Amino acid sequence: MTISSADLAGSLDALRTRVPLVHSLTNIVSANFLTNVLLAAGASNAHIDNAHEAGDFARIAGGVLVNLGTPDDGTATAFTVAAEAARDAGTPWVLDPVGVGGLGWRSGLAVDLLKYRPTAIRGNASEIIALAGLGGDTRGVDSSDDPAAAVPAAVALLEHSDAVSASGPVDHLVGRDADGTVVGLRIGGGSAMLPRVTSTGCSLGGLVAAYLAVAPTPLIGLAAAHAHVAVAAEIAEANSSGPGSFAVAYLDALYTVDAAALADRAIVETFDVTVGA
Amino acid sequence: MTISSADLAGSLDALRTRVPLVHSLTNIVSANFLTNVLLAAGASNAHIDNAHEAGDFARIAGGVLVNLGTPDDGTATAFTVAAEAARDAGTPWVLDPVGVGGLGWRSGLAVDLLKYRPTAIRGNASEIIALAGLGGDTRGVDSSDDPAAAVPAAVALLEHSDAVSASGPVDHLVGRDADGTVVGLRIGGGSAMLPRVTSTGCSLGGLVAAYLAVAPTPLIGLAAAHAHVAVAAEIAEANSSGPGSFAVAYLDALYTVDAAALADRAIVETFDVTVGA
Amino acid sequence: MTISSADLAGSLDALRTRVPLVHSLTNIVSANFLTNVLLAAGASNAHIDNAHEAGDFARIAGGVLVNLGTPDDGTATAFTVAAEAARDAGTPWVLDPVGVGGLGWRSGLAVDLLKYRPTAIRGNASEIIALAGLGGDTRGVDSSDDPAAAVPAAVALLEHSDAVSASGPVDHLVGRDADGTVVGLRIGGGSAMLPRVTSTGCSLGGLVAAYLAVAPTPLIGLAAAHAHVAVAAEIAEANSSGPGSFAVAYLDALYTVDAAALADRAIVETFDVTVGA
Repeated sequence: MTISSADLAGSLDALRTRVPLVHSLTNIVSANFLTNVLLAAGASNAHIDNAHEAGDFARIAGGVLVNLGTPDDGTATAFTVAAEAARDAGTPWVLDPVGVGGLGWRSGLAVDLLKYRPTAIRGNASEIIALAGLGGDTRGVDSSDDPAAAVPAAVALLEHSDAVSASGPVDHLVGRDADGTVVGLRIGGGSAMLPRVTSTGCSLGGLVAAYLAVAPTPLIGLAAAHAHVAVAAEIAEANSSGPGSFAVAYLDALYTVDAAALADRAIVETFDVTVGA
Repeated sequence: MTISSADLAGSLDALRTRVPLVHSLTNIVSANFLTNVLLAAGASNAHIDNAHEAGDFARIAGGVLVNLGTPDDGTATAFTVAAEAARDAGTPWVLDPVGVGGLGWRSGLAVDLLKYRPTAIRGNASEIIALAGLGGDTRGVDSSDDPAAAVPAAVALLEHSDAVSASGPVDHLVGRDADGTVVGLRIGGGSAMLPRVTSTGCSLGGLVAAYLAVAPTPLIGLAAAHAHVAVAAEIAEANSSGPGSFAVAYLDALYTVDAAALADRAIVETFDVTVGA
Repeated sequence: MTISSADLAGSLDALRTRVPLVHSLTNIVSANFLTNVLLAAGASNAHIDNAHEAGDFARIAGGVLVNLGTPDDGTATAFTVAAEAARDAGTPWVLDPVGVGGLGWRSGLAVDLLKYRPTAIRGNASEIIALAGLGGDTRGVDSSDDPAAAVPAAVALLEHSDAVSASGPVDHLVGRDADGTVVGLRIGGGSAMLPRVTSTGCSLGGLVAAYLAVAPTPLIGLAAAHAHVAVAAEIAEANSSGPGSFAVAYLDALYTVDAAALADRAIVETFDVTVGA
């Protein structure tokens, strides 16, 4: 098996032990919730999106998140500064191409950022398809496409990144195995309440940055973040009666899930990936 | 009766069926909560406040919210771009004149935005009075005036908009009936906890934008949004023990209230409006 | 005793009676939670961080908070405008030097702001040490230093301010007594959950601004804000099962704690301060 339960458990233990510091450049909708997700899960976060400081901080952070949710001219410059510094310093970084496809200006920003080789890319299906230049139907920041339909696009993006995920009802991840083979992972579980709470996707991107700082490979880090979220969401759904109480229970569950629970409850399946001729 | 229970119920059903996509340009205090309110109620939201993209998105959104809570030079330009595009494309849009009256720069912005004819205007009493140029005592972003006192100002603003509300302990709305007559509506219920949780007013503005996308007239859309909030707040107050748990229960209640409950519990009264000579 | 229980109780009563209006210039991570903390505690808040309006509003507000969490070129200008106006108008204001020390640009901003003589300074231990020019090990926005170690730095900062706190597991405060003597206060209680929820520190800074508007001396206001938070956090920890439910219970507890409970439960100790030769 490509990714074992022990890989996931080991990554969560490493997260809790090392408490990686994430440097987030995220949007004004998600900034608070994303930080609470990281703190609850066991990491730390500093949101620094000015161009004066973003480079220096990306060099010392454990992982960097660049999220295109609410860019302006100032933060767009900081995105580039942070991505370049992360690449140069060897800091793993995540690109979250929010709204790419439907919105022209940020689509150009996202394509430019690919040159700094994000360690991982996380988006919804429509965003991943659009970023790969394969079309996609982005409805604002929500997805009109199924994650399974985004697999060819995710594979195409491996030209620019080590691991790519299309999140959704069943998350689809692709990346390179320890021996360099491209493999696919489906991560089940989760909750239908997740899209009823804003920033659950954006904060997953932040959690990927945290796991990249401690996991043995980008694909394992990407998978551990998605599995941690999926298991916590399942627990939260069982302890809530609407989106308000779900969000509260979700933060509690991200905090209380331990390595044993993650290994026991995570639903991860491998699938074969055809890499283009 | 000007607005029937069936009008409210039909609007909520339409919201849940059609899931309108709101384009919000709101402030950094309310961005997260407003999006959660829209998702809980049954709509969708994308916050896009840069001038590069705000026009294109306002053309395709179901409704647009322009909220003056925390403007800067960049977002102020985006407000104008979005409002002009909404008017030109026929997208209904809402102006929320946060802090107008007490704060000079934004008061000028608000007056300029009136030329793009907002479909609806929602504010607290002081803001509505100030926007109409009739005085008003704005205490920061809170109101020092009673909504009933804002009715003449709300009527005056119908020169620039189809429907206007002054929110407060009892919301006062004015607008044109199906036959063009100007009518007034009082919406009761709600909770004294609403002003103890930030962004309940701003997120109501966002919900108005969502309802305008699906309701048969602006006044019905405005009324349905206020009634949905008032009923949810009543339910939340009964299920909470302070402002923290109220906010959680409020999101749950926005989600669980259905058309039958809305029609049953909403407190809507008509009042006569005198339109100036 | 330097600060009595009656001083704390009287300050909370004054807060609830007078409902001071805080003018916050805070970061995008904390803006929502900080406002909810102020509303729950009994104050009011308006976040105004554009240079066009920040000066006028600082003149009429009850207290001003300048928080350096996510500065950009625009808000940095507004910080200076607000601080200068506050000093000139006699409005008490609080400097929260988030991230100072580890981040170069904002460290310069913070030093410049000292010239407008903040009424109080609140930071974590690392930030206080860094701001005093005495070193400090800032890890992003978290502290690597113990509050007790920051006391000499806090005393040094009394050259620029009336009262200074280093928050942490046990808060350490220094300031001038009614007769001008420099004294130290330790405030215990609190909860290990506080650092698991983002913006608990930033919102404490906002609460200090609210208390400065109503308390007889800056040191009493600073102490009352820290004690209110510590007592509410203790109550919240007993009513929660993780960081999500803690944040909710914390807002409820800030609201329900009254003057008698604050006087009864607050843990405040005086300590001697050596002021340099």
